[in-house]
Amino acid sequence: MAKSEAGKKKRVYFRPDNINVIVERGANLLEVAIDAGVHINASCGGAGTCGTCKVSIEKGEVESTKTAKLSEEEYKQGIRQACQSRVATDVTVYVPVESRLEKAVLSRESKEVAGTIATGWRFNPPLNKHFVELTPPTLEDNASDLSRLLIGLKRQCNLSNLTVDFDVVRALPKSLRDGDWKVTVTTLVTAVKSRAGDRRRPRVINIEAGDTREKHYSLAFDIGTTTVCGQLLDLNRGRVIAESLAYNGQISYGQDVITRIAQCQKPGGLKKLQRAVIATINDVIEELLTKSKVSTTHIGHIIVAGNTTMTQILLGLDPKYIRLAPYIPVANFVPPVEASSLGIQVKKHVYLFAFPSVSSYVGGDIVSGIVGAGVHQREKLTFYMDVGTNGEIVIGNSDWMVTASCSAGPAFEGGGVKFGMIAREGAIEDFSLNPANFEPVIGTIGKAKPKGICGSGLINIVAGLLESQVIGQNGKFNTSLPTERIRAGSDGNEYVLSWAPETQIDKDIVITEVDIDNLMRAKAAMYAGCQTLTSSVGVSTADLEQVIIAGAFGSSINIEKAIFIGLLPDIPRDRFIFIGNGSLLGARLTSFSTDILDDVRRVAQMMTNFELSERVDFMNNYVAALFLPHTNADEFPSVSERLSKNKPKRRITV
Amino acid sequence: MAKSEAGKKKRVYFRPDNINVIVERGANLLEVAIDAGVHINASCGGAGTCGTCKVSIEKGEVESTKTAKLSEEEYKQGIRQACQSRVATDVTVYVPVESRLEKAVLSRESKEVAGTIATGWRFNPPLNKHFVELTPPTLEDNASDLSRLLIGLKRQCNLSNLTVDFDVVRALPKSLRDGDWKVTVTTLVTAVKSRAGDRRRPRVINIEAGDTREKHYSLAFDIGTTTVCGQLLDLNRGRVIAESLAYNGQISYGQDVITRIAQCQKPGGLKKLQRAVIATINDVIEELLTKSKVSTTHIGHIIVAGNTTMTQILLGLDPKYIRLAPYIPVANFVPPVEASSLGIQVKKHVYLFAFPSVSSYVGGDIVSGIVGAGVHQREKLTFYMDVGTNGEIVIGNSDWMVTASCSAGPAFEGGGVKFGMIAREGAIEDFSLNPANFEPVIGTIGKAKPKGICGSGLINIVAGLLESQVIGQNGKFNTSLPTERIRAGSDGNEYVLSWAPETQIDKDIVITEVDIDNLMRAKAAMYAGCQTLTSSVGVSTADLEQVIIAGAFGSSINIEKAIFIGLLPDIPRDRFIFIGNGSLLGARLTSFSTDILDDVRRVAQMMTNFELSERVDFMNNYVAALFLPHTNADEFPSVSERLSKNKPKRRITV
Repeated sequence: MAKSEAGKKKRVYFRPDNINVIVERGANLLEVAIDAGVHINASCGGAGTCGTCKVSIEKGEVESTKTAKLSEEEYKQGIRQACQSRVATDVTVYVPVESRLEKAVLSRESKEVAGTIATGWRFNPPLNKHFVELTPPTLEDNASDLSRLLIGLKRQCNLSNLTVDFDVVRALPKSLRDGDWKVTVTTLVTAVKSRAGDRRRPRVINIEAGDTREKHYSLAFDIGTTTVCGQLLDLNRGRVIAESLAYNGQISYGQDVITRIAQCQKPGGLKKLQRAVIATINDVIEELLTKSKVSTTHIGHIIVAGNTTMTQILLGLDPKYIRLAPYIPVANFVPPVEASSLGIQVKKHVYLFAFPSVSSYVGGDIVSGIVGAGVHQREKLTFYMDVGTNGEIVIGNSDWMVTASCSAGPAFEGGGVKFGMIAREGAIEDFSLNPANFEPVIGTIGKAKPKGICGSGLINIVAGLLESQVIGQNGKFNTSLPTERIRAGSDGNEYVLSWAPETQIDKDIVITEVDIDNLMRAKAAMYAGCQTLTSSVGVSTADLEQVIIAGAFGSSINIEKAIFIGLLPDIPRDRFIFIGNGSLLGARLTSFSTDILDDVRRVAQMMTNFELSERVDFMNNYVAALFLPHTNADEFPSVSERLSKNKPKRRITV
Repeated sequence: MAKSEAGKKKRVYFRPDNINVIVERGANLLEVAIDAGVHINASCGGAGTCGTCKVSIEKGEVESTKTAKLSEEEYKQGIRQACQSRVATDVTVYVPVESRLEKAVLSRESKEVAGTIATGWRFNPPLNKHFVELTPPTLEDNASDLSRLLIGLKRQCNLSNLTVDFDVVRALPKSLRDGDWKVTVTTLVTAVKSRAGDRRRPRVINIEAGDTREKHYSLAFDIGTTTVCGQLLDLNRGRVIAESLAYNGQISYGQDVITRIAQCQKPGGLKKLQRAVIATINDVIEELLTKSKVSTTHIGHIIVAGNTTMTQILLGLDPKYIRLAPYIPVANFVPPVEASSLGIQVKKHVYLFAFPSVSSYVGGDIVSGIVGAGVHQREKLTFYMDVGTNGEIVIGNSDWMVTASCSAGPAFEGGGVKFGMIAREGAIEDFSLNPANFEPVIGTIGKAKPKGICGSGLINIVAGLLESQVIGQNGKFNTSLPTERIRAGSDGNEYVLSWAPETQIDKDIVITEVDIDNLMRAKAAMYAGCQTLTSSVGVSTADLEQVIIAGAFGSSINIEKAIFIGLLPDIPRDRFIFIGNGSLLGARLTSFSTDILDDVRRVAQMMTNFELSERVDFMNNYVAALFLPHTNADEFPSVSERLSKNKPKRRITV
């Protein structure tokens, strides 16, 4: 490429993104960055008043207005506000972590979702890396290695009031000398901010020779009863580098938390179940590292969110009293633990932070989802539902929140479903039916040959079968239809979604009446929970200003079809938003911002738990919901209307 | 025993001491306690103004004046000032920990020593046990186990802002239910108070079912290059329960710290040396527990003081750079470590606190000694010397302190001495000589048959031999004397202290010229250090207002004899005080009082280190001191006078 002429064209090189652009001399640096796809915070929109778009001019010159947002010292160091700077020469611009745009934290969530996540937080991960260059010791200055390091951290990084892990002390002499007195120090804010304005004491957890700031990663996990989802995060760029999910290895010990707890009571049971989920986590980590080519050495932190039982078993805390009235968890707030002490294959300095839970049946996953979705930040009356094995629901806003859990069972995650599977490549997700010949049109994740059915696929399939009257509102097949796809199978009647030769597994992939029954019970539990909880706080579903649906069961959910089968209430469609795995979203945002970490305690403490299992109306609502969409047609006016339109047509075809 | 009559005689029962006394009605409670040997603080001497003698009247009544030192609430709870109370009926009096007399912390130190230890501190051990009775959970009150515990600790023990160890969380459900919601919680103040008035965050380290407050012990250790001394402390009563000492198992890897550091550089060397000292510590613990019949379960804390090298090796911190200029320790302040992770045989919840050091050659043992002796509390110009393998010395007062170490070698602890031994039973400690026939009169520790010579014994023997001119001022034997006790041995000439049949070891116990030479070099290093350090701060030995001698080499040191051989300066004898193992004293007092723990940081930071090895005058002073008592007779006027008196007399005896 030709060099930029001495005249008007200038080259701007952005670090650490490694992006080069050629622009006109005098171009506004913030605009250049936006055009180049380099993320820079600018909450005031470029007015120069917020001071969030600071960048460091490493080479070359910009013409810049100095506002009050820039200290004398910063100015001397070459720090400038991007929005106040115009390109004067070829320049190299370093965009520091704190100036990167928060929206970069989204991975595959849609633009729409971006509007629903928590806002107003700064990019300041609890895990930090600091580079210091120390003066080597002399006879006149023979402070200990640790004192030298702490003085350096104070002078060069303005870090004080630190706690130092013993292993760091042990590694000090070698690291300092191997790095020729230049080292990278990793600090972690472990505690959520306590009352009374105590200063935080960041913990020094690791020291490495040389400058290793560029390698700075952490892991976020959603530990579900059925599936475990993990993300590898780049803490310099606030980005998801890789994502992976797997069935929770505990599944072989039972499908719901109650069975798992019972298993834990057998001799050695807790240890076995703990090992099973740790093995799954290790598999996910391995896949994340392989995909991303990141070394385990550079993982510095793990944040997990899970329901109370999953969290306790993961940590080796006996879940016995979760199952017995009055349903007591060991602890809602658990201190951070050395991840390797649990068997997780990461370096010894890596701490695991588990999201606090609210009660035995309202876990850290829901707290994480609420924080991630920013429900606590808005005045809107919001209904939040995490569609999963435990089916946790929340209603509230920035002032109050009530929560409950409705034990949906594993159907939404493919559990208890003959060909059910996790939402991975080959899972049937989209489904429609040709009403003329009852032949299906299916779509799979990754457009691969079908392998099974994921949770969102199951909803779509049942909705499709219902609409075409292949099944009745009681979930039973209409065996009189002229198609060989409906047949008797080992689990009662079934419908063939894909013939063996078209699949990856050389078997006919079917959906059975048992599968449909499982889904009906799952959706009935969720809907009954929703009804019971809303009525218990004196509102009706029509009052809900926003319904946030979270779930690990697929990349997206078809709201219309979910209403059609009676999972979601029949209210205006624009109030619904699907955010994907909310638990993982909250874990990720917390990995990116200590501000969010601070919200976590507040949210967990503001939630009031509601025991559905103790309520008669919940059981009544549940039984009434064991129908497609519901025994009470008035609850689902739009669905009833559509079903009644279809009816005559179908009845003819015999 | 007959019941006390309804009339004048009343019974007073003191808890937890379990002491009963019969007294006149109207007797002053403080005086009753003093007479009964029950320790109660009363720093104002009974005037009612200090409020330190508070006791709890559990049964019966006292007539009491309520002063401003007693709050309304305390008064209602039955708390009284002992000095303001007169016995009215039979009473049961509970003396709380904070009211017990600080002098109770002394073990075998003399009354004289009691005047030299740190004063003004309250009895408030960093390790505490708290008993709470919780309300069992119900459906209406189904907080987590941990929340329930923390609320109980706040309401019943006024404890908040706690950090909870993860293992405690893990043990919670079982402990709470085993104890029927009554449990004992152990807390530890691990950090020394930091600047800026941050509140301490005590750490919850253990939970036990039921009320276990009565079993509340800790360990204090002095980890010397040559010997390891340990004490088992009763933290309810502020008493030493048992004491034990043993040779540091590292001795087989070399006698001084330099050799030990060199050994650590071999492959696996550090690990080996660490294991050696841990094995010694475990032996000492076992002996302490056997002696006292205390179970290891009830040990809750360990405080160790040692020189920098010993501390680093104990903790597994590479001491490599201690030996190389510019002599850098890894850390002066080391965070507390789980003792069991080092291999120490105590429960997992036990933390080990190591005294901070000042530099590579001024260790935690000297900081501990200074704090224990209260040098930092007084204006008096004090010279503190720890007579041991490292020979650490301090000069200063409450305003300033300079320190140095003078590498005396192991002679004072029986190392490098043919029949040298630790100061245990059978060690020759006292020695005198019949000038008529040169026959010795020896005294041993425990009055047992002799087994060897301890450090203080060595000083007494050499002084005795010198005074009787059995050896000359150069340390060589006068072989012309008419006694078969002087003879040629494998290590040059020697003197038989005890013939084989009189010993426990069936060998002649002798002192050799090599032994004497080792002692001379050791005392020369100490004396030269003293001279160099005093002159470097512009004072002379005559200016010293107090000389505190510490050492693990025997139960006492004969000051006169130590001056006679030139170990201590020839100044008025009433300025000297021997406090025994100062390092252990400080470790013990710190175990008893968080106030002292707070002093530790301040003292370590106020010490200025002085590298003697870099000074020419130190070498000159050392060479000049390689004589008994010194080549410069003017330095030791009183000794010279005595020697010259003896001379003619001795010369005749050929």
